Amino acid sequence: MRTPPTPQRSSTPVTSSRAVETGRVVRAFAPGSTGNIGPGLDILGCALSGSGDVVRAQLIAESGVRVDEPGHPDLPRDPARHASAIAASEVLRRAGAQVGVALSIEKGLPLSGGQGGSAASAVAGALATNKLLGDPLTQRELLLAALVAEEQLAGRHIDNLAPALFGGILLIRSIDPLDVVRLPVPRNLRVVLAHPQMLLRTTDARAVLPATVDRATAIAQAAAVGAIVAALYSGDLSRLSGAIEDRIAEPARASLLPGFAAAKAAALAAGALGSSISGGGPSAFALVDGDADAITVMEAMVSAYATEGVVATGRVARIDEIGARIEEERA
Amino acid sequence: MRTPPTPQRSSTPVTSSRAVETGRVVRAFAPGSTGNIGPGLDILGCALSGSGDVVRAQLIAESGVRVDEPGHPDLPRDPARHASAIAASEVLRRAGAQVGVALSIEKGLPLSGGQGGSAASAVAGALATNKLLGDPLTQRELLLAALVAEEQLAGRHIDNLAPALFGGILLIRSIDPLDVVRLPVPRNLRVVLAHPQMLLRTTDARAVLPATVDRATAIAQAAAVGAIVAALYSGDLSRLSGAIEDRIAEPARASLLPGFAAAKAAALAAGALGSSISGGGPSAFALVDGDADAITVMEAMVSAYATEGVVATGRVARIDEIGARIEEERA
Repeated sequence: MRTPPTPQRSSTPVTSSRAVETGRVVRAFAPGSTGNIGPGLDILGCALSGSGDVVRAQLIAESGVRVDEPGHPDLPRDPARHASAIAASEVLRRAGAQVGVALSIEKGLPLSGGQGGSAASAVAGALATNKLLGDPLTQRELLLAALVAEEQLAGRHIDNLAPALFGGILLIRSIDPLDVVRLPVPRNLRVVLAHPQMLLRTTDARAVLPATVDRATAIAQAAAVGAIVAALYSGDLSRLSGAIEDRIAEPARASLLPGFAAAKAAALAAGALGSSISGGGPSAFALVDGDADAITVMEAMVSAYATEGVVATGRVARIDEIGARIEEERA
Repeated sequence: MRTPPTPQRSSTPVTSSRAVETGRVVRAFAPGSTGNIGPGLDILGCALSGSGDVVRAQLIAESGVRVDEPGHPDLPRDPARHASAIAASEVLRRAGAQVGVALSIEKGLPLSGGQGGSAASAVAGALATNKLLGDPLTQRELLLAALVAEEQLAGRHIDNLAPALFGGILLIRSIDPLDVVRLPVPRNLRVVLAHPQMLLRTTDARAVLPATVDRATAIAQAAAVGAIVAALYSGDLSRLSGAIEDRIAEPARASLLPGFAAAKAAALAAGALGSSISGGGPSAFALVDGDADAITVMEAMVSAYATEGVVATGRVARIDEIGARIEEERA
């Protein structure tokens, strides 16, 4: 990690249409997430407990958004290319605020990991900035502000953004108009993530997706999405078995992911209800019933990667039902 | 209607491995159904109250299946080409029964109407024959016996067969292995059917389906299926609004169906939650909240067809939650 620059502090009031003060600081957290959940390419996603990104936003005298600490040596300081800053700029624009904001990002999520890292940074940046301005934007507007970042960096989809902001397990019906269905969270549902030490940029993972699919594949995929929704509502986790079946993205992406096939097979053999690629990868995920099985599945997946010569880290999560939140606010 | 032939009656016991008697009669009913329910091409279907097909099956001395009354002048007497007889033959084959069965079919459902008529005939034929034999087959086997008929006459799909047999609103996850999810039935859900006076054979309706769909279409279709499942579980019928959206079959079939576009528009204007083609058509369906609105929507659809120069009949149905049943049984 680089040494963070000293944050600029000033007590001089900013020329602005709003009664905001330079120096005010807000810290916002947004959780990681897994998108797709198997067959729900771009339309199913859930927020995960345990890890997330934190964005600290501070009012400054100069106008516009500045990145003081990008959160990772590989992330840009250029505010036009950092997810948090792009989202924060869009919040300023939508709010008509003539103020300046300095951002410091703490990355809890891996870069290009398939765990919703860019979405969490965008959402936390948007939320912190909005709070700094006195909450001028609605949640829906915050989502759209964060989408400006996600669209530029990863593509126009909200299966990570919406869970990062709202929490829970979400079905994305459409972006425009925004139509998101919150699905029930079965009490014992656990999500295991195994993160192999490799990078797969979302844009690269999307490039291999087929432009068309045959009708039978489209139908089977829709049936699997329906079965997941039914299983979540029924609360009977065993009904997820066989439903986490992605016939569109997984076949196209699996070859980019050494060790994935072995990790998936190991997860299922260890009792997982289903397993597939988390978002665009490279992380693999598994859905599991209960804590004990979840840890067993995590160990099995990490071991399987190791057998294939891939170093992987694992974690076990519950669904984060809250989503992005303010962690600290001070004048 | 032709004059039905005098049913053959005999009191001579049939040479058979089972203790069955010639002359025994069973009448079975199977309800109509609507397949697809918009986006659920081949994977969503529901049974409808009010109309169905009845099959009367009688043990006879000669072996094999005979069609005494096909149920409609346009339906064949050839048992190799009549849905009920094909299904009944398959029941005999699966049961290893060396008996003969004479069938008389009463068609309550329109031919080639998109209201699950062939499926109801097949299911009622299978159920009546099985009962005649003393119930040797399971429900699952009955479905597969009826599928032999449906596959030959309409295609390998069970989105009408399964509701006709089991009742309710069903999500078909797969045929092989058979995996069907029963979805909740919201109390006030009504289905309106408008049947224009034209024939559209299921095979012709299937021939226009696209072999491939673009990825965005497949994703949107899956999201709509998920939204329907969520709406049914939530019990909030308003959540069906916008979810009855078929981007695969309806665009391909609508041009075959004069008046459909007008009828759909009229249904939505009259308060329907959604509207699309019922199965392969030509019937159109609409989902409606409550009896009063359902009748209003039915009238609007029939009027819209009339304005387009198409004579149509309408009906309003509840979901038939029972499915196929024995109506009469006597030795």
